[in-house]
Formats: sequence, C-alpha cells, structure tokens
Amino acid sequence: MKPVAVDGMGGDRAPGEIVAGARTAAEAGIPVLLFGRPDDLVAAGAGDLAIVACSEVIEMHDDPGRAVRAKKDASVLRAAEAVRDATASAMVSAGNTGAAMASAILRMGRISGVQRPAIATPIPVPGSRPTVLLDAGANAECQASWLVQFAQMGSVYARARYGIAEPRVGLLSVGEEATKGTALVKEAHALLADPAWSQGSGGTFVGNVEGRDVMTDDVDVVVTDGFTGNVVLKTLEGGMRFVERALLRAMTATDELRAAFEVLWPAVLPLVTDLDPESYGGAMLLGVDGVCIISHGSSSANAIVNALGVAREMVDADLVGALASAVKVPSP
Amino acid sequence: MKPVAVDGMGGDRAPGEIVAGARTAAEAGIPVLLFGRPDDLVAAGAGDLAIVACSEVIEMHDDPGRAVRAKKDASVLRAAEAVRDATASAMVSAGNTGAAMASAILRMGRISGVQRPAIATPIPVPGSRPTVLLDAGANAECQASWLVQFAQMGSVYARARYGIAEPRVGLLSVGEEATKGTALVKEAHALLADPAWSQGSGGTFVGNVEGRDVMTDDVDVVVTDGFTGNVVLKTLEGGMRFVERALLRAMTATDELRAAFEVLWPAVLPLVTDLDPESYGGAMLLGVDGVCIISHGSSSANAIVNALGVAREMVDADLVGALASAVKVPSP
Repeated sequence: MKPVAVDGMGGDRAPGEIVAGARTAAEAGIPVLLFGRPDDLVAAGAGDLAIVACSEVIEMHDDPGRAVRAKKDASVLRAAEAVRDATASAMVSAGNTGAAMASAILRMGRISGVQRPAIATPIPVPGSRPTVLLDAGANAECQASWLVQFAQMGSVYARARYGIAEPRVGLLSVGEEATKGTALVKEAHALLADPAWSQGSGGTFVGNVEGRDVMTDDVDVVVTDGFTGNVVLKTLEGGMRFVERALLRAMTATDELRAAFEVLWPAVLPLVTDLDPESYGGAMLLGVDGVCIISHGSSSANAIVNALGVAREMVDADLVGALASAVKVPSP
Repeated sequence: MKPVAVDGMGGDRAPGEIVAGARTAAEAGIPVLLFGRPDDLVAAGAGDLAIVACSEVIEMHDDPGRAVRAKKDASVLRAAEAVRDATASAMVSAGNTGAAMASAILRMGRISGVQRPAIATPIPVPGSRPTVLLDAGANAECQASWLVQFAQMGSVYARARYGIAEPRVGLLSVGEEATKGTALVKEAHALLADPAWSQGSGGTFVGNVEGRDVMTDDVDVVVTDGFTGNVVLKTLEGGMRFVERALLRAMTATDELRAAFEVLWPAVLPLVTDLDPESYGGAMLLGVDGVCIISHGSSSANAIVNALGVAREMVDADLVGALASAVKVPSP
C-alpha cells in the first residue's frame, strides 16, 4: 500500500509521541510519510522514516478557517494534499480538529453526492462492539437530509470497521416515540422510517434512541447533529474519567485498601483500557474523498499506532468506495 | 408547614415504594398528603397518612397532553391543584414526567414574567456540590431569552439548595470560544455576557462550558436547551450505570477477586451512593408558581424520602419568592 501521511506536528504531545507512534507502526509494516519541520521530527527520533518538509504548523488554539488559508505550507494541509495527489493512501492528524477537517475537505474534496462530511467516533462498549456516533462535531447545525446521509455513511463504516453486516441505526432523541424531540429530529425520523435510504449501506433504522442507549449493545450507529454529538462525546469522556479517578482515589485511600486493590487491578485494567479513547484509533472524517483520521489532541504514541492500524484497515477495505456507493443524493 | 402533596400513583414502583417513602418522611416530621385511589394506597400500607381520593391515574406510557385533558381526577393533577389552592405547600411525583410538568403548569401557572418553566436536575460531583443542569427536558426547542431566564432560575436554585452565594453559570457548547456552537448558543452567549441578567439571582456567567465540565467543580449551573440537556442527563446516567456494572462484574469474577473486592466495598459504597440519582431528591420544575419535584420514574421509597426532604427545604427557603424576584422579563 501507499504510505499513510502523518501530521508530525499536530497534537498536544507532538512531535515526540507522534513520531514514536509512527516508528512503531512502520516497524510493524505500515508504510508512513511524516509531515513537518525536519529538524523537529529528527530531534523527536524520526530516524529513517521518510519526511516531507513543511515549514508551517497549525497550533491547537489557531482559528481553523483562518489558519488553513494563511498557512499554506502547514503539515496538516500538506498531508491532505498528499492524499489528494495519491502519494499517500490516508492521513492521520492529532492536531487542531477544525484545521484537520478543513484541510481534508479543502484538499481532498467531498465524495460525489455527499452534502456534509461528518466526524464518526466509536464509543466503547466493553464486552461488545463499539457504537459509532456521528456527527461528533463537524456540523453544529444540520438539516434532516444530512442526518440521513450520516446514517448511510455510519452504516458503511460500522460494516467496514467492525464487520457488522446489518448495522442497527438509531436516531438520538429524548424519547422513543417518533413525536419526541426537535423539529429536526422529527423530520429526520420520517425520512429514516422509509427503508429506501439504506440501500447499499446495509443499515436498518431501529427508531429513536436515548442518551442511555449509546453505551449499550442495542444499537450500532447513533445519528445526531454535530452539536449534540460533540456534547455527548465530551460528557461521556468527562464522566468516565471522573468515575475512574474517584474510584481509584477511594480504593487506594489506605494501605489496607491499596493491598486489596492490587489484587483487583489486573482484572480491572482491561476495562480501563477498553474505555480509554486512545484505544479506539481516533475519529474518522466520513464523506471526504480519502481516508482521514482525526486523533484525540492528547494522543500518545500508542494512540497513533492504533490510528495508523485503522487507516490501513480502512484503505484495504476501500471505505471510500463503499461510502460512494451507499450515499444517495436526496431528491429535491 | 402545610403538607406536601404526594402523587401516590405515579412511578414504576407505585404505589408501594411511594407510600413507604411518604410514611418514612411523615415519621421524620414532614407532613404529607397522599393523592390516589384509597384502596390501592391503603393496601400499599398508607396506614394513618391523610389521603385525598382521586379516581384516575396517568400511566407512564400515556400521552401527557391528552392525559391531563382527559383524566381530570388524576392523582398528579389533583396534587398540583392542592398547591394552587394552598392546601399543600409543594408537590412530588415520580410518575409520567410530561404529565407532572403539564399538571404543574396548567394548575399552578407560571411565576409572573417566566417565559418557560425548565427542569433543573442536580448532576452528582462526589467530593463537591452537584452541578445544576437546566433545562433537562421541559423544552426541546428554546429561544435565547429563555436560556437567560434558565440562568437566572438556576442561580437562585443553586443558592437556595446548595448555599452557593454566587453560582458560576456556564452555557453548554462545543468549545470555550463565544464563536462556537449553534446560532442559539451564540445568541445566548451574547445576552449572558452582559451582567445585567444576573441582578437578584447572584449568578455569574463564566462563559461556555463543554460536556466534560458538567461533572467537575468548575461550574455550578449549566444552561442548555431541553433537548441537549435531556440527552446529557441520560448519557451520563447510562454511562455511569454501565461503568459501575462492568467494574463490578470484573471485580467479582473469581473467588479471589471477590474477597479483595469485599475489603474495598465499604470504601466504594459512598461513591456509588453519591452517583445514584436516587440520592438527589429528583428534578425541580422551576418557573411554576409552586414547588414541584419530579422524581425519577424508578424511584424507591428512599428517593421519595429525599424528594420530600428537598420539598420541605425549598418551601422553607421560599424558592418561589426568590425566583419571582430574580427572573426578568426580557426587553422586547
């Protein structure tokens, strides 16, 4: 396969952790192209990894729209260009989410017929397959027909990534009844209730779902607007971290407790790992004409290794081709 | 104080648990009036509690709007009437949320100047005071000026209930910047940025907050529309329950683990209790002209005892009077 373009400068822990992750993945057989300032990347231990020199960096706090216009030689933009020019098969960035999104949309363009690309994020369901949540933040305000395309794209992704033949698609609302929710949700519900949308995607609409269903095995794909999706994602992230920390503190408060906890730790560790967003290989920007993975800003080397593994899988599975066949242009 | 009107027929575990909770509270000195079918309430152990006979019951699955029109003698409607008529000082229901809300709005009416009542739900933050989230589901679609009133009402409630002199109010969004979020959020941000809104409520606007901030000590009141608020609440509820169950399963998988877990359990129990929605005394419908507590549908006797305790506190604190002074009619 063609190499995966890695934004070596993007992320809270870049370039060190990014470069370390890229090296590990390369040693495991995934070809990698590092984008960024050569001096920084070499100092971070790039060794003999191929480097594409870029003079600029989009910082985490930069305004995405302005930055992608002003910094034409930014590592994240150049990585997206490499996918467009077919010198890379996919891109991975742990940098500024808005900038990674804008770079992919501007440089790769959309798949024909896609109204709006969406961020798909796997939500861990330990003991079962993750739930794919989309849109997790690309479009704060949505139209009902976009949500239908999110259902199509989410189904294709759940199939390609988790091998779910007929993904169950739920529409996030505040009650099961079709009459519950906002005007947007009611309109989207009516469109999704007609099975015509799912041809080619394999998805099946199971109706409205609620926040409490996201972390269960009752649904495979949860569709919502990017505002609600982002709030759900961050609420879960915060809630999990909070409970983990509070439990850990309670269970190690005395020497006696700590001794008991040490017996339990090996049994608990797999669960903690499962719940860690780092394990999930990052979010996928679905609907752009190329594989684009946007990893968490705090990504460690391990998160980058996972992201590169997912990138390879999605290239091998021809995710983009499958999305192009499944997405329908809504009738006017 | 005048008795608290308790909807004896509302809730998944009514009347048994409701009656048991009412009795315990009454024994602790909170006067109670039970509303419902006398035979059912007596069979559930009402003993010498005062009963107001009502012939009808609004079921959990009933359509709230239709039910409150059709069932004029329903226990929840009659409980709201008792507050209106000042034969009761407050009402508590664990039944159909929509019906409890509609009953309170129709029978008690709104506090003068309130555009829309909102459901305020405390989110547990173990080791610290809960965060008040509103609107947690009364209004799926909101206008910016309603959100400003939610900030006013939420501040008054955080002060009355948790003794927070100057509650920090955050607006739920997808980033800290004032430019992030939906059109509604941007408009509300602009209105809240002018400190004029907070006179009389004691609140201070701390800007946008994200999902991950809800369960922290960084904010006391989180304001959002009823769709997003309800999704956040149910997502947290589901996520917590999921993590608790998965941890418990992992930590009791073998005899050796179970033995270690038994040492830890007393240290973990307070946290589990803190995180349990039952401990929080239910949600409060703010903006109606009376104290109205809507408990979780699955409420146990203990949840009802807590709800009745909160009802008494809020009556003693003259919550309704404080809300009336703090809520401002927006300039046209």
